Amino acid sequence: MSKQQIGLIGLAVMGKNLALNIESRGYSVAVFNRTAKRTEDFMEDEAKGKNITAAYSLQELVDSLESPKKIWLMVKAGAPTDATIAQLKPLLKKGDILIDGGNTFFKDTIRRNKELSEAGIHFIGTGVSGGEEGALKGPAIMPGGQKEAYDLVEPILTAISAKVNGDPCCTYIGENGAGHYVKMVHNGIEYGDMQLISEAYFILKHVLNLDAGELHKVFSEWNKGELDSYLIDITKDIFTKTDEKTGKPLVDVILDTAGQKGTGKWTSENALDLGVPLPLITESVFARFISAMKEERVHASEVLKGPELNPFDGDKEKYIESVRQALYLSKIISYAQGFAQMRAASLEYGWDLQYGKIASIFRGGCIIRAQFLQKITDAFSRNGELTNLLLDPYFRKIADEYQHALRRVVSIAVTDGIPVPAFSSAIAYYDSYRRAQLPANLIQAQRDYFGAHTYQRVDEEGIFHTEWLEK
Amino acid sequence: MSKQQIGLIGLAVMGKNLALNIESRGYSVAVFNRTAKRTEDFMEDEAKGKNITAAYSLQELVDSLESPKKIWLMVKAGAPTDATIAQLKPLLKKGDILIDGGNTFFKDTIRRNKELSEAGIHFIGTGVSGGEEGALKGPAIMPGGQKEAYDLVEPILTAISAKVNGDPCCTYIGENGAGHYVKMVHNGIEYGDMQLISEAYFILKHVLNLDAGELHKVFSEWNKGELDSYLIDITKDIFTKTDEKTGKPLVDVILDTAGQKGTGKWTSENALDLGVPLPLITESVFARFISAMKEERVHASEVLKGPELNPFDGDKEKYIESVRQALYLSKIISYAQGFAQMRAASLEYGWDLQYGKIASIFRGGCIIRAQFLQKITDAFSRNGELTNLLLDPYFRKIADEYQHALRRVVSIAVTDGIPVPAFSSAIAYYDSYRRAQLPANLIQAQRDYFGAHTYQRVDEEGIFHTEWLEK
Repeated sequence: MSKQQIGLIGLAVMGKNLALNIESRGYSVAVFNRTAKRTEDFMEDEAKGKNITAAYSLQELVDSLESPKKIWLMVKAGAPTDATIAQLKPLLKKGDILIDGGNTFFKDTIRRNKELSEAGIHFIGTGVSGGEEGALKGPAIMPGGQKEAYDLVEPILTAISAKVNGDPCCTYIGENGAGHYVKMVHNGIEYGDMQLISEAYFILKHVLNLDAGELHKVFSEWNKGELDSYLIDITKDIFTKTDEKTGKPLVDVILDTAGQKGTGKWTSENALDLGVPLPLITESVFARFISAMKEERVHASEVLKGPELNPFDGDKEKYIESVRQALYLSKIISYAQGFAQMRAASLEYGWDLQYGKIASIFRGGCIIRAQFLQKITDAFSRNGELTNLLLDPYFRKIADEYQHALRRVVSIAVTDGIPVPAFSSAIAYYDSYRRAQLPANLIQAQRDYFGAHTYQRVDEEGIFHTEWLEK
Repeated sequence: MSKQQIGLIGLAVMGKNLALNIESRGYSVAVFNRTAKRTEDFMEDEAKGKNITAAYSLQELVDSLESPKKIWLMVKAGAPTDATIAQLKPLLKKGDILIDGGNTFFKDTIRRNKELSEAGIHFIGTGVSGGEEGALKGPAIMPGGQKEAYDLVEPILTAISAKVNGDPCCTYIGENGAGHYVKMVHNGIEYGDMQLISEAYFILKHVLNLDAGELHKVFSEWNKGELDSYLIDITKDIFTKTDEKTGKPLVDVILDTAGQKGTGKWTSENALDLGVPLPLITESVFARFISAMKEERVHASEVLKGPELNPFDGDKEKYIESVRQALYLSKIISYAQGFAQMRAASLEYGWDLQYGKIASIFRGGCIIRAQFLQKITDAFSRNGELTNLLLDPYFRKIADEYQHALRRVVSIAVTDGIPVPAFSSAIAYYDSYRRAQLPANLIQAQRDYFGAHTYQRVDEEGIFHTEWLEK
C-alpha cells in the first residue's frame, strides 16, 4: 500500500479545509482527530472520494505517511498542542517535520522548535491567515523554522496558498518562531485597520449624517483608489445588508461590543517588551475593551456631558475626501509602527526578516490584503535598511500631502466630542517621530531630581547628575 | 545579650536609609549585606553610635533577632531576591516574617508568598515609594501579604512612613501580591503625570514662547491650586536652575531621551491582560520609547514636514488657564483609568482593595503625592462601589467644566503639529467612555463577515451570525 504525502491532525473547520485544500492540489493526505466521530463524519462527507485516508491512532497516522514524515497540526493553541506533540514525539524519527498551523504565541513556537530539534525533529510554526474560506481556497502562509525543513514542504505550502498575479502568498519567514511572530503582527495591524475604518464610519455618520446607502457609496468609491483592500470591500458590502426582522440596515442592529481573540493584545505586549512604540494598534485594542463595557457606557452616557455637535455647513464632498486622506495616512502610520516593531524583533530574536517579502505575501489571502501593500514592498526594494516606512519617498509624500486632512478631521472630531483614539494617536506619533526635540528633557530633569536617575546633555557626552535643591 | 527587633538585608542606598529610618523611630536593627565591606563601611559611617548591629552571615543575622523574626529584604528584584529567600528559608521557623521591599513584579510576590506560607513563614511584599530621601525620612508604604503578619509589623511600618496631617501613609493593601501591585499602578500613574506635565510644558513653550522664568511662574501659580503636587512643585523648581557651563536654563541643555525602569510597562501589560483600557499611561510609556529614538528623530525631522506654527494672537492668560484645565482634567482621566484597573485586578486576584485608603496613602511620601488625592478618597467615601472616578459628582463637574479647554488645547496642538499623545488620548477615552453607542457594531459586522465570529443584537438576546455574501 502506498504511503500518503502529508498528515493532518485536528479536524475542526480550519483543519478540514486545509486538508481539502492540500488534496485539491494533488497531494495525498492522511487525517487524524482526537475524537474518531469527527474523522468518520469528515470521511463520509467532505473527504468522500478524495485522496484522503483516515487514521484512528497517532501510530496509525505516522505509519501511513512516507518518510520523512510531514505532519501538520491544527490543534487548539497552548496546552492541547503541547500534549499532541508529546504523544507524537516518540513516534517520530530524525528528519521528520512537524508543522504547527495554529494560532500559537511565537515564544511557544521558539520553545517547541528548540525542544524538538534536540531530537533531530524539524518544527515549523506557521501563520495561516484568511479564515475558513482562506484555508479552503488559499490563505496567506507565514512559515518559520528550520530552512531545510521548509524547503521540503515548500511545494505543498506554495501550492495551497493564495496567489497574487501568480505569486504565491507564502514565503520562508525565518528561524523558529518568526512565522508565528509575523502572523501576530499581522493580526495587530488588522486591529488597527478595523479601528480606523470604524472611526471613519463614525465621523461620516455623525458629522455628515450619512445613512447606510450613502456610506455604501463612499466606501465603494474608496475601494477603487488607494484604500482598495479586503476590509474596505467587505465594509461597503456590510452597508447593503438589510435586517430581515426590522427592515433596518443590519449594521444598525448589531450591538457595539467588539470581541477579540487576544492576538492584538500580544502584539501590544510584545511592543512594550521590545521598547517599540506601537500606540495606534494599542489604542485599537483598548477601544475594543471600552466597547465591551456596554452597560457602564450606557450609564456614563446619562451622566457625563459632551459638547453640542456643530451642524456641518461645509462642502460635504471635500469633507469626505478629508476623511479618506485621514484614513489612508493613519493606515500608513499604523503600518510604519508595525513594520518598525518587526525590525526590532528581527534584531532581538535573530531572524533577518525580509520586510518587503512579508508585505508582498500579505497582498493575498489574509484579512489585511490590500493594493497598498505593494507600496511597502516597493519601499523596501528601494531601501532594505529603511528604519521607518514614513521615511520612504512615496509614504513621505503622502504624509506631506494628507497630514492637513488628518489634522482637520481630528480637530473637528475632538471639538465635536466624537471619539477618535486611533486617528489622534496617528497624528501624535507622526508629530513625535518627526520632532528632533521632544519635551522628554523635562522628564529627565524630574527623574534626576526625585530619583538621582542622571541625564545626558545635548552638548557633551557623558552622564550627569545635578543636586537640584542646592541654590 | 538582648536581641534586635528587626533585620535588614541589602545595604544599597535604599536599604541603608530604611535601616536608619527604622532605628530613628526607636527600633533596634540588625543589618546584613552580601559583601561584608559594605556592612563595615555602613557601621563605621552612618550607623555609628546607633542601635544597629552588624551580622556577617545570614545565620548570625537570624540569631541576633527576637522571635518571631522580622527580616526586611532590600535586594535586587528577580533572581537575587529568590536566591536570598532560598538561603534564608532553612534558617526560619513557623511564624517568622519576611518583608520584600524591593521593586518586585507582583506575580513573583504571589508565588513567593505561596511557597513560603506552605512552610508557615509569612511573606509581606511591600511597595516603598519616595526614592532615597523618602526611605530615610518617610516613604509611602504599600504592604501586601498575610494580615496577621502585617499586624505584627504595622507599628514599625507606620512609624517610618510619611505622615499627612498626622495620618501615616501606610495601610494594609491585601493578600499576597496586592502591595506590589498597587505600587506598580502608582508607578504607571507617575508615568502619566510626568507625560502630561511635559506636554503642557511643550505647548506653553512652543505656542506661547514662554521662557524658563515665565514657565517657573506658571507652574508656581499652578502649584497653589488644584494641581498642587510634588511633581508640579519640582517642575517649578527645575525651571529656576541655571547650567553653570553655558549659563542657559539647565532644562534646555538636558537631552530629551527619557529613561525608565520598566514598571510603567508592567502596568500597561497588566491592563492588556486584564482587558482594562489604560490608554493614557500606555501612550506615556510609548512616548518615552519615542523620546529614546533620538538619532532617528533628528534624521526624520529633516525629512518629514509639519505645518507652520500659527503665531498666537489670543489672550495669553486665558490660554494658560486652558492648558491648566486641560492638564487637570487629563490627570483625572488618567487616575480614573488607573483606579478602574485596580478594581479589575482586585476582582481577578481576589484582593478586596480599598481604593479610598490607597488614594489616601498616596498623599504623602511618594512621587505622585498631591492635594487632589483627597478628592479620590472623598469620592470612594461617598460610594465605595464607584466603577469609574469620572462618575463621581466632583470629578464629573470638573469634566463638565474643563472639557472645553482640553478640546481646545488638543485641537490647537494637533493643528500646529505639537505632539500631545497623552492629552489627545485623554479626550478620546472620555468621549468613548461617555458614549452609549460606539462604532464597534461595524467591527462586529466585519468579524462576522470574515471569520463567522458572530455578534449580538441591540434588540434581542442571543448570538447571531449572518451569511453576508447571500443577497
